[in-house]
Amino acid sequence: MNQHYQNIIETIFHQIKNEENPGEVASYIPELANEDPEHFAVSIQLINEENYSYGDHQTKFSIQSISKVLLLCLVYRDMDEKIWERVDVEPSGNPFNSLVQLESDNGIPRNPFLNAGALVITDILIDLFDDPKKEFLAFVRDLTDSKTISYSETVAESELKIGFRNAALCNFIKSFGNIKNDPEDVLNLYSLICSVEMTTLELCNAFTFLANGGKKIIDKKEILTKSQAKRVNAIMQTCGFYDESGEFSFRVGLPGKSGVGGGIVALFPGRYVITVWSPKLNPKGNSYRGMKFLEQFTTATEESIF
Amino acid sequence: MNQHYQNIIETIFHQIKNEENPGEVASYIPELANEDPEHFAVSIQLINEENYSYGDHQTKFSIQSISKVLLLCLVYRDMDEKIWERVDVEPSGNPFNSLVQLESDNGIPRNPFLNAGALVITDILIDLFDDPKKEFLAFVRDLTDSKTISYSETVAESELKIGFRNAALCNFIKSFGNIKNDPEDVLNLYSLICSVEMTTLELCNAFTFLANGGKKIIDKKEILTKSQAKRVNAIMQTCGFYDESGEFSFRVGLPGKSGVGGGIVALFPGRYVITVWSPKLNPKGNSYRGMKFLEQFTTATEESIF
Amino acid sequence: MNQHYQNIIETIFHQIKNEENPGEVASYIPELANEDPEHFAVSIQLINEENYSYGDHQTKFSIQSISKVLLLCLVYRDMDEKIWERVDVEPSGNPFNSLVQLESDNGIPRNPFLNAGALVITDILIDLFDDPKKEFLAFVRDLTDSKTISYSETVAESELKIGFRNAALCNFIKSFGNIKNDPEDVLNLYSLICSVEMTTLELCNAFTFLANGGKKIIDKKEILTKSQAKRVNAIMQTCGFYDESGEFSFRVGLPGKSGVGGGIVALFPGRYVITVWSPKLNPKGNSYRGMKFLEQFTTATEESIF
Amino acid sequence: MNQHYQNIIETIFHQIKNEENPGEVASYIPELANEDPEHFAVSIQLINEENYSYGDHQTKFSIQSISKVLLLCLVYRDMDEKIWERVDVEPSGNPFNSLVQLESDNGIPRNPFLNAGALVITDILIDLFDDPKKEFLAFVRDLTDSKTISYSETVAESELKIGFRNAALCNFIKSFGNIKNDPEDVLNLYSLICSVEMTTLELCNAFTFLANGGKKIIDKKEILTKSQAKRVNAIMQTCGFYDESGEFSFRVGLPGKSGVGGGIVALFPGRYVITVWSPKLNPKGNSYRGMKFLEQFTTATEESIF
Repeated sequence: MNQHYQNIIETIFHQIKNEENPGEVASYIPELANEDPEHFAVSIQLINEENYSYGDHQTKFSIQSISKVLLLCLVYRDMDEKIWERVDVEPSGNPFNSLVQLESDNGIPRNPFLNAGALVITDILIDLFDDPKKEFLAFVRDLTDSKTISYSETVAESELKIGFRNAALCNFIKSFGNIKNDPEDVLNLYSLICSVEMTTLELCNAFTFLANGGKKIIDKKEILTKSQAKRVNAIMQTCGFYDESGEFSFRVGLPGKSGVGGGIVALFPGRYVITVWSPKLNPKGNSYRGMKFLEQFTTATEESIF
Repeated sequence: MNQHYQNIIETIFHQIKNEENPGEVASYIPELANEDPEHFAVSIQLINEENYSYGDHQTKFSIQSISKVLLLCLVYRDMDEKIWERVDVEPSGNPFNSLVQLESDNGIPRNPFLNAGALVITDILIDLFDDPKKEFLAFVRDLTDSKTISYSETVAESELKIGFRNAALCNFIKSFGNIKNDPEDVLNLYSLICSVEMTTLELCNAFTFLANGGKKIIDKKEILTKSQAKRVNAIMQTCGFYDESGEFSFRVGLPGKSGVGGGIVALFPGRYVITVWSPKLNPKGNSYRGMKFLEQFTTATEESIF
Repeated sequence: MNQHYQNIIETIFHQIKNEENPGEVASYIPELANEDPEHFAVSIQLINEENYSYGDHQTKFSIQSISKVLLLCLVYRDMDEKIWERVDVEPSGNPFNSLVQLESDNGIPRNPFLNAGALVITDILIDLFDDPKKEFLAFVRDLTDSKTISYSETVAESELKIGFRNAALCNFIKSFGNIKNDPEDVLNLYSLICSVEMTTLELCNAFTFLANGGKKIIDKKEILTKSQAKRVNAIMQTCGFYDESGEFSFRVGLPGKSGVGGGIVALFPGRYVITVWSPKLNPKGNSYRGMKFLEQFTTATEESIF
Repeated sequence: MNQHYQNIIETIFHQIKNEENPGEVASYIPELANEDPEHFAVSIQLINEENYSYGDHQTKFSIQSISKVLLLCLVYRDMDEKIWERVDVEPSGNPFNSLVQLESDNGIPRNPFLNAGALVITDILIDLFDDPKKEFLAFVRDLTDSKTISYSETVAESELKIGFRNAALCNFIKSFGNIKNDPEDVLNLYSLICSVEMTTLELCNAFTFLANGGKKIIDKKEILTKSQAKRVNAIMQTCGFYDESGEFSFRVGLPGKSGVGGGIVALFPGRYVITVWSPKLNPKGNSYRGMKFLEQFTTATEESIF
């Protein structure tokens, strides 16, 4: 492994580990609230196939909203640019689960990384495949070359039980005609998709094709075209962190995506994918230590796409 | 000049020139409405000092909102990160002159490229310098090494006469205490700053330090630190095109900024700055041919930051 | 019957009958779309027990949102002023099924005559009674002294099948904790309550206690206290016609309530209740002929509460 | 004087006088902040020409927004129903100086009692009369038969100096074309109109024609037609208390209007006008003691229009 990156990662890791960790574990999904708040892991996967991990990198965690990127890729591959008739690519300037804009935008979500947008993409997924649940998992396992990756039915059910806001969003979009299937089916599948569990290194592997022009680095298989991969990265850059997207772009300077489970993945096209996991969230719902780690990492490496 | 870029530029230029040009020249500023709608120019300035221009590249045009980036840089250099106490860095999801978000955000504009944000930066400029009008022009002339660059008093007055929306914004922000000076003084200076006129190549030169880690390419003078330059680019990426910022990021894949005079500047950090000028605007207020040109340019060069 | 009122009613009825009827029958509930659009009936019930009807006054129709007033009264009687902890009494300035305000008001609906507000009142009804469905019907039958009044299960099911907007509202409020029961149960009962069918005279009778200081006129039974009855009338005055409430107050000058089935009930405290039914709706969702009739009626009688 | 009303007024007055007075004097207009917060006065004027006053009823106070009703009447008399092309009659559901709705309503204010609406009416006033400032004062003096009523130039200037929110509103409406004159002229006149000072009894007298079918009670002069007077009352009912209009209608049950100077006027058509003045305001900007007094007054008299 590149000694340069390894040193930087270890230094920052220990520094942050020794500082206060003032965030809050996501408590609205009861199952996630049980997560040990002090978990802290980081992995980097270079395009040249080297990788390096540190901390609790052997523990799988709930990737939650990060799944929306993989979901988008699976559906984008099939639908190509027609997908944008159902969802837009603009940052929203609003929290992840806001209903306000949907009302003025007639049920077209602002982007695929809002819950509203991901529900629409899930609805398309149901129409594309006979067994969408199986298909999505197969897609993720193929990307990571890991057969141990699975849904957590417990987490999915835990989320469904309190998922009234998502049920509101789904029924609201349905009232505009932009959900075709039964809202309950869409919500069930969506919760499962968000419940996927991985280690930080597996999550890096799931995203390497996006840092590699659309191709997996091991077998060079094309998942998306070069242009499609760039576009997914562009959407992550502008919309990956809800109403903190500008802040992340500003501080970290890389496209990325966060999840309420405390994971953040970011990538430097042509070079690497980096994943940090720490369950405590800042008030905007992004991992407190994850944001801090990545800001210090790109400052130390002096690398950003800008 | 790099023959590769030159060929691509000429090819795309002629192709677009022969296609329909369905936009509308900005009519709300009477002086701008007189602009010949068929003007069309492009310039590219490489970091290695080569440059190349094509079309009406000897005609100066009103850069309008593009000036907001230069204004931000001048004030950012002086205030450093304290500037963000007065303006945020998030995309707004709303048109450039919307008042709605200001009400819920208590007078803190979402970003410095909304009119609201640029008015606040102008207010700071007034407090920083004895003669802010002279200072801003000197800054722009230094960046471009061109002494012929000037304000257009005619355009500035023309805009002021119909600038009731900006007067509303300025008074509204003042009511929250985030404008310190007399709203009329702020509006006068703001209109002047937007009225600056340049050629496409001069505009490239004004932005090269942002593609060069904060340093001018000719005399290596540091305008901003490396980190500050990256951050300005990041804000352009997420907020440079009002509620079409996501679309530009998605289609073109470069940080950039548009103006209602029909200019667009975009840059590839470490490589080049490219400027297109064509006065007819699409419904979102960005140059119709400018958007099209840049999309085709990054598709043809297969270069984007993603 | 008071010959004065009778003459005025017949004159206006024939005049309007001969004029164009440009509205649209509510088409979003399939069952209501089958209603004969030319139905037209009017009834007036004086506090002195006289009444008079004209037109299709023997046909029962779906009173829809008018039911919200009766629902409010049943729950208000039981809860007294504690009810206002769950729903406010302010006009909304928005359409009947808007979700926007709920987001900023943390799930407290603006008033009990918005769908959001009526869903909350339905939720309370479920907690108050063992068999709320039976209880509400018994309440309406008692008010009207009519045992033939019933729910229309067909209409209720027809509405439920397309009621995604209401499902969104109900789940959204639940996400704020202001719905206690299962959203599905609330939605089922709410649809039934709106499906009640009556004639115009029966509808007058259902409302006479509100024009009579809270007491039924036949048996003097107190349904609400004098103060409660006044307050319900006040809410009808400010909130009875969605975002046309000001217009109705302005043109007609009486408290009233409309339903998407084409019914409108209005009342003059101490004097009478008047009901008009005509299924075609104006763009704001209120009966076109009903609004016109009542405006001409209060102009001709020179009676309004103002 | 009717002994009944006199007794009720004195009883309630003393009771409230002995209770806590937790509101805040309007501090945003510096001149008003100097008002003695313990001033407390009430007057009632019956249609039969009797009147009765209690407390500090000999002190003139700034009627502020209450002037908007008189302004509306003066312009309504001249324009008749054409006035509603420039301003609507719907409650807003928002604070008195909100800009949000104006943006979606294209510069047509929701009602004439919002600042936005009153600015539009002031703009019309300027077009109707050669000397609108003189004309308005003459109108108020005629209504009250009091030649001592005047503008307070000091209060008007004090308000203008900090009136950035109103300047924002005025310029915003101008940007939609619904203000015809220079915003500065409109703002100057508007501040004067709000600065009119009267005693509580004079204020009663200014409103008696609205309780008397449009005619002054002394000389029977018609100010408005019967229908126009009813309509002004209807708008007061639905829009007289900003986003507390529903609450006032609900608790007091009379049409009325409040001002930030601590005055409230309410009227019972055909019977009386009642005015209370107490400078401390509740969080919604209405007189704390004024609201309380009127609620207890209509409860005690058991009189309300409902």
